[in-house]
Amino acid sequence: MAKDKKFVSEITSRDEDFAQWFTDVVVKAELIDYSSIKGFTIMRPYGQALWENIQKSLDAKFKATGHENVAMPMLIPESLLQKEKDHVVGFAPEVAWVTHGGNEKLEERLCVRPTSETLFCDHWAHTLQTYRQLPMKYNQWCSVVRWEKTTRPFLRGREFFWQEGHTIHETAEEAKNETLSILDMYADFAEKELMMPVIKGKKTESEKFAGAEATYTIEAMMHDGKALQSGTSHYFGDGFAKAYEVNFADRNNTISYPFQTSWGISTRIIGALIMSHGDDYGLIIPPAVAPIQIVIIPIAQHKEGVLEKANELKTRLEKSFRVKVDDSDYSAGWKFNQYEMKGVPLRLEIGPKDIENNQCVIVRRDNREKTFVSLDNLEEEIIRLTKELEQSIYNKAKENLESRTETLDTMEEIIASSNAKDGFIKTLWCGDAECEAAMKEQAGLSSRCMPFGEQDNIDGVCPVCGKAAHHRVVWGKAY
Amino acid sequence: MAKDKKFVSEITSRDEDFAQWFTDVVVKAELIDYSSIKGFTIMRPYGQALWENIQKSLDAKFKATGHENVAMPMLIPESLLQKEKDHVVGFAPEVAWVTHGGNEKLEERLCVRPTSETLFCDHWAHTLQTYRQLPMKYNQWCSVVRWEKTTRPFLRGREFFWQEGHTIHETAEEAKNETLSILDMYADFAEKELMMPVIKGKKTESEKFAGAEATYTIEAMMHDGKALQSGTSHYFGDGFAKAYEVNFADRNNTISYPFQTSWGISTRIIGALIMSHGDDYGLIIPPAVAPIQIVIIPIAQHKEGVLEKANELKTRLEKSFRVKVDDSDYSAGWKFNQYEMKGVPLRLEIGPKDIENNQCVIVRRDNREKTFVSLDNLEEEIIRLTKELEQSIYNKAKENLESRTETLDTMEEIIASSNAKDGFIKTLWCGDAECEAAMKEQAGLSSRCMPFGEQDNIDGVCPVCGKAAHHRVVWGKAY
Repeated sequence: MAKDKKFVSEITSRDEDFAQWFTDVVVKAELIDYSSIKGFTIMRPYGQALWENIQKSLDAKFKATGHENVAMPMLIPESLLQKEKDHVVGFAPEVAWVTHGGNEKLEERLCVRPTSETLFCDHWAHTLQTYRQLPMKYNQWCSVVRWEKTTRPFLRGREFFWQEGHTIHETAEEAKNETLSILDMYADFAEKELMMPVIKGKKTESEKFAGAEATYTIEAMMHDGKALQSGTSHYFGDGFAKAYEVNFADRNNTISYPFQTSWGISTRIIGALIMSHGDDYGLIIPPAVAPIQIVIIPIAQHKEGVLEKANELKTRLEKSFRVKVDDSDYSAGWKFNQYEMKGVPLRLEIGPKDIENNQCVIVRRDNREKTFVSLDNLEEEIIRLTKELEQSIYNKAKENLESRTETLDTMEEIIASSNAKDGFIKTLWCGDAECEAAMKEQAGLSSRCMPFGEQDNIDGVCPVCGKAAHHRVVWGKAY
Repeated sequence: MAKDKKFVSEITSRDEDFAQWFTDVVVKAELIDYSSIKGFTIMRPYGQALWENIQKSLDAKFKATGHENVAMPMLIPESLLQKEKDHVVGFAPEVAWVTHGGNEKLEERLCVRPTSETLFCDHWAHTLQTYRQLPMKYNQWCSVVRWEKTTRPFLRGREFFWQEGHTIHETAEEAKNETLSILDMYADFAEKELMMPVIKGKKTESEKFAGAEATYTIEAMMHDGKALQSGTSHYFGDGFAKAYEVNFADRNNTISYPFQTSWGISTRIIGALIMSHGDDYGLIIPPAVAPIQIVIIPIAQHKEGVLEKANELKTRLEKSFRVKVDDSDYSAGWKFNQYEMKGVPLRLEIGPKDIENNQCVIVRRDNREKTFVSLDNLEEEIIRLTKELEQSIYNKAKENLESRTETLDTMEEIIASSNAKDGFIKTLWCGDAECEAAMKEQAGLSSRCMPFGEQDNIDGVCPVCGKAAHHRVVWGKAY
């Protein structure tokens, strides 16, 4: 117990300093290491395995809905970046520039992609010819670079990993449907696999993606009440297509411009799940994406038959689950702490007494409750405990979201609430960018989104200007 | 038949101009598209699907042998690149330099990784502490950039995709074993999945990787007799470890340096399989990695029941194979040509007559032979035909390799043979770099490798200098 305390004291508690807790846990759980360049992190095996599980799940969903993977170049010529004027204004100030190849200065400088709309458009400009080729529904997994001033692992990196989907369609309606059905896919993934409740909505004009007609988002709330934008989906209309001369012979054999979307989820989502579920013992990784779903710890492993039994259980369980046996010479207590830090959902302990009784002990990571389980129905019990854990961490996150969400009417209330604590504040809004800026200025709140399903029957006034409101907005303080 | 000819005439024949055939086929089969930057290509869905199949197969082999994936930053500070002197001399002249982040000039310029030994060493320098952590066996899938002067799709790009494995071990012996067992894994993959015979061997001093103690290679021969280095595995000793201060407390609790390896296979392997197996109708993709293993072409698809039957067969076959039905309104003849161009191993034709007779037609891509197959034993026949195709394309490539390999003794013979045709020439060699340079100068040949199993009982002289030989070398003209 003394040892337990000592180990745990190596990470800051969440209540003491949530930001420090976060950086402690991502390092101690061996998700990442810092590199020698600010804002560039190293994904260690455990972090990469987690990301690969996220990739595998999303990639299968993309493919099942007719999307195909491609790979675009990592560099973009400056002239190509500049063709869509809102886009270049949005991204040029934060890109990394390649100016030399070997010993020679380049004729035109190239930026490391901050996002790849321009590259996809350039490709489509010389491959799209007829409506028969539409829709083209592409995705790529890659890293992108944005020269951020302040950086934090997973949350804001100068390099980060993501998927970026890019599609073009014959009609605006089809493209709009794509934008929204991807948003639904993201929300489902967040809620059902990462066990993170999210709010779906539309971004305001000032928060939308550079060059987009509309940006949709899923917004999650972290344990500390701050907001984290966890996935976005953009509808472009035919703006990029026109700027990049992407066109095709339509059904009437006249030249038409396709309607475009893009959408992405990044390694930020790892930051989101950490800050949604983690506790003072470390990570709690949702089972669907956990690199290790069950860790088997042999108890008194030097005793006859213990390691054999542990390995026999591994062989049995790895048919259905991701399992690891830790038979290292560290103490059982050290191992308990280690895999709690790493957020492994279930710990299975097996010792001489358990073997005698044809049972084992299973400990849930979230509430650390022990259950004695007969080896006869081990798989069923694991599934039951996994489902309970999932439901429980979802409920906890949902409760956090709900208890920290207020619906307010006046600036006085809004400012008081924002000063008192972090959370979501719902208000009406006239739609004016100046009122949005005032909310930032006066209450320190940024608009997260105009939530779906809450935009009808709006009857009231904007708390800033007092004019008639047209929207309902969720405001918050964002990572 | 007229249409058939016309279509096929769109690609240059191999005998007329092999280089042009290659660039024709990679574009027409929609593997790649050119981007607006020289040497940067776009992997289109069909090319990317092929690469993903290669990745999936290799990744599973790496993981099964205890390797873990990680992700290092894409940029390397100049000072970090410079710590190992042979390495920097080898790579600095061909890297792309990032000099600006946003509007600001960087204090130190950063290169886009040309390879990542330096990054792995930097990471290990602050994570490795004890022998208990060894071995560390890491791999990453990424793209790298090398500012090549002449570029060709798949064969030599300024950006290319690859996996790079990096491992450190307690002992030199263990690291050497790793280097060689990875080489065996690469050779097995090439021979058994890509159906490409390869020669395993050791590179000469002048051809080894910058900073390595030894480089091992698998060398394949293309249809035109030229050599293609298809995968390499390097042993570093403790040179990088010392340069980057990577060390650990060993079993005697004294400071030791680990022994290191790295190894890689890139998208070049796609170039290799194309130039090994393709013919004047286009690609022939080995079934193990083919994005589409069977394409189903409905014949007279407007007739009742044909499309239904085609889709029924798809549903049945996709349990075991990667299958596509092409029910587009192009003619059957157009489709035949299209999927021959794309190298789909088997074409399944199903029309009203076939349905009546409970059969279909299967056409092998390699020899274009038709077989009538009863629907009762379709799967068995597909497996049989697939195996026959695999064996047949392997044999053809093997025969090409063997018939174009000569063992010669004198410079006169060597020069005459090299002038007459492209192929491998085996000779003895004294081991002197000057004689190796003379072989290039006089006969236009570079050393491919010193093949395994042929280095014993060497009795004779170097054809260049006439002194006693110590090695047997395979020479060739390389892509």
